Amino acid sequence: MSNIYDTAYELEKSLREVDVFKSLAVAYNEMTADGEASSLFKEFRDIQVNLQQKQMTGGEITEEDITNAQAIAEKASTNTIIQKMMEKEQQLSKMMEEINGIITKPLQELYSSLDK
Amino acid sequence: MSNIYDTAYELEKSLREVDVFKSLAVAYNEMTADGEASSLFKEFRDIQVNLQQKQMTGGEITEEDITNAQAIAEKASTNTIIQKMMEKEQQLSKMMEEINGIITKPLQELYSSLDK
Ligand SMILES: [Ca+2]
Ligand SMILES: [Ca+2]
Repeated sequence: MSNIYDTAYELEKSLREVDVFKSLAVAYNEMTADGEASSLFKEFRDIQVNLQQKQMTGGEITEEDITNAQAIAEKASTNTIIQKMMEKEQQLSKMMEEINGIITKPLQELYSSLDK
Repeated sequence: MSNIYDTAYELEKSLREVDVFKSLAVAYNEMTADGEASSLFKEFRDIQVNLQQKQMTGGEITEEDITNAQAIAEKASTNTIIQKMMEKEQQLSKMMEEINGIITKPLQELYSSLDK
């Protein structure tokens, strides 16, 4: 039986080597190297984090918050460097969801037995 | 380079074989086989799911919801079969968090570069 942590480290290594991660890293580094793109992206990310924190703590999300978030999301998405980076991010996110589905299948199977 | 999905399937297999998962499966099956424990646990789980859905969709969580959830959580936690199962669940959850931390390290590293 292989140690589960060893296998997890193998998976970490595979992630670093997989094309979609390498493409994301390139796109992300291009973004951080560009002053305009990176300040736009930071603004976008900070607003997202702020909204998520409000949602998790039950804080009130105002109409202004939503208008603000939409405006900066629209602005960020017209920046081609950010656009490219987010495309790669979506591809990686899809892959990570699939991987998570594979890994947690034993738990899903176990828990589904309750309703049978 | 190993295929990342192959490694994910290896991790799934390791999870099925690891002691903490096998102990949880035994405890969980003991719980589902016990009428009292399983109906108590279903009630507990349904209330949790309901609260989470309200939180995610921004629905109002009333004082009654919280009082209800606390009452059923207390009732469930006095059942020794559920108690044992939840203990195993916490151990597994800790392990899964560690594994997730290992796997997603490349992403954490990449994303942390923005604020440097
Ligand atoms: Ca520019
Ligand atoms: Ca009983």
